[in-house]
Amino acid sequence: MGGDHGPSIVIPGVDIAARAMPDLRFLLHGDEARINAKLAKFPAARAASEVRHTDKAISMDEKPAQAMRRGKGSSVWNAVEAVKDGQARAAVSAGNTGALMAISKLVLRMAAGIARPAIVASWPTLNGVTAVLDVGANVESDAEQLVEFAIMGAAFHHAIHGSVRPTVGLLNVGSEEEKGHEEVRGAHALLRAGTFDLDYRGFVEGNDIAKGTVDVIVTDGFTGNIALKTAEGLARFFASELKATFTSGPLELIGALFATAGLNRMRKRMDPGAVNGAPLLGLNGIVVKSHGSADARGFASAIRVAAELARGDFAGEIDRNIQRLTATLSETAGPAPVEGAAE
Amino acid sequence: MGGDHGPSIVIPGVDIAARAMPDLRFLLHGDEARINAKLAKFPAARAASEVRHTDKAISMDEKPAQAMRRGKGSSVWNAVEAVKDGQARAAVSAGNTGALMAISKLVLRMAAGIARPAIVASWPTLNGVTAVLDVGANVESDAEQLVEFAIMGAAFHHAIHGSVRPTVGLLNVGSEEEKGHEEVRGAHALLRAGTFDLDYRGFVEGNDIAKGTVDVIVTDGFTGNIALKTAEGLARFFASELKATFTSGPLELIGALFATAGLNRMRKRMDPGAVNGAPLLGLNGIVVKSHGSADARGFASAIRVAAELARGDFAGEIDRNIQRLTATLSETAGPAPVEGAAE
Repeated sequence: MGGDHGPSIVIPGVDIAARAMPDLRFLLHGDEARINAKLAKFPAARAASEVRHTDKAISMDEKPAQAMRRGKGSSVWNAVEAVKDGQARAAVSAGNTGALMAISKLVLRMAAGIARPAIVASWPTLNGVTAVLDVGANVESDAEQLVEFAIMGAAFHHAIHGSVRPTVGLLNVGSEEEKGHEEVRGAHALLRAGTFDLDYRGFVEGNDIAKGTVDVIVTDGFTGNIALKTAEGLARFFASELKATFTSGPLELIGALFATAGLNRMRKRMDPGAVNGAPLLGLNGIVVKSHGSADARGFASAIRVAAELARGDFAGEIDRNIQRLTATLSETAGPAPVEGAAE
Repeated sequence: MGGDHGPSIVIPGVDIAARAMPDLRFLLHGDEARINAKLAKFPAARAASEVRHTDKAISMDEKPAQAMRRGKGSSVWNAVEAVKDGQARAAVSAGNTGALMAISKLVLRMAAGIARPAIVASWPTLNGVTAVLDVGANVESDAEQLVEFAIMGAAFHHAIHGSVRPTVGLLNVGSEEEKGHEEVRGAHALLRAGTFDLDYRGFVEGNDIAKGTVDVIVTDGFTGNIALKTAEGLARFFASELKATFTSGPLELIGALFATAGLNRMRKRMDPGAVNGAPLLGLNGIVVKSHGSADARGFASAIRVAAELARGDFAGEIDRNIQRLTATLSETAGPAPVEGAAE
């Protein structure tokens, strides 16, 4: 029921995904009448789906605390609960991000050893796709949390973008060791010292995102959110300038006619919607956020992200590295205070 | 002597500025032989300049601490010292930013009531130019420092971009009151409560930068640096995609031929070099950083920024608002601890 368009985008999105990945089955949570009306026009979606009715939906502007209090039985709550109960392997929602995060944390709880969840964005670059996280689940992150993000981001890039051993960088204001605040320098030290199964490449800067210098870029949620939205704003500025240029005079219009196919390919390649589907990482279960304004193709892409994460050894990969983090931390802190078998 | 090209860019830049603003006079600090050789070819620059020889220059990769220790007598040091001594009204350098900042702080000292300096970037937007600060002088900023940035940024926008009463926004991850970390929320409260001569519009998000929603965007140096470099990276990605598109086939090449003039106008409009010249704000004197890779036109633009700041009531405007900040803070803190006439 979520997003700017509800079932009128979600059902066509399910239809695209059902045709592309015929082994998928869907539980559709929400208003049965509206869902069924839409399913009637999309046979592939209908054949692969079962509808779970609820009257209740969380609106796009509801506050997370309110959503947690009154959310039980809502479409998003039920979708997440189905993951907890083992009825579904993953949940996908285009709804209210804060509410989805709050309900997911409450229902699924954090995975063992992970302090904070993270939202990961897939960013089109000169070199393919770079995963940037956190882009808004947290406003502050300490060194350990940044290392958790590195671990989760690498497992995500491996599962979704097929890199065998993703390269990881830490976003900073310079590449020298002494640059940045305490948190990034602390995370850098941990990543250098730790025995993680990670190809850590050190500090990267803002311009390395679009360059695609590394596969995974780790940052706190405040900086990540602002970098992502700054880029979105700039991309819209480019598009509007480009349009203005190609309608500025008769010569430019002729130019546009000749170059249309190329410009469309370019737009597609740079389109963030082409890589829609941002998982909420760090939970006991897979939850993927689709952009509220995504179209059916974008929603299908979010479903693909959920399916790929559910299929692979995503959770196991994270867990093994988190155990290494715990070991590294207890070593630096000296013997563990309680009956831990500290080596 | 600074920047990627030294006198071979600086002197032609001075020449452009000297012709555009015939009342300016220049003190050129550096290697006399190299400077004079270049001046011989630029009569307008030669007529307006006096050369102050020094053998010593700070290299682009020297650390700030090192530059402070061994910097005395170098070209950049002498340029800043000329401002302190009243021989020059402003200093402009294309050299090492960290060294310029460290030497400027040491020689000029901070202006009364200002805790931290800031570097301001002029960002081309849909609506003209937005001043973004801090973009890298600090890695962390508390609420009071963010308010100082707001005050300095507004005075800068007024002096350089001619806005009568610049609008000011605080960069955050959402526009609601409760969003963000302690520092931005604290600065928001101060800006709302204070009696500053500022048109404060509340929180803005990353995408508001390119939109030009407000004239001045305030953020900490870590976030600002990463936002700026992320945008630079994306702009380069966009330019390279555009070039690839227009050379991808014969139709696209024909399109490019027709659209060349329009595309050049667009590039010029979006070119950050067109608004080159980033002052180091908060010091007892005007120091402007030119981008190390700027061309002569860009260097002339940095000179124009320095000249406009020196001409107006820039320092006075900042000082009046800083006094209001001090008053606001001493009110919230209760009666001033020492012989202050607390009302």
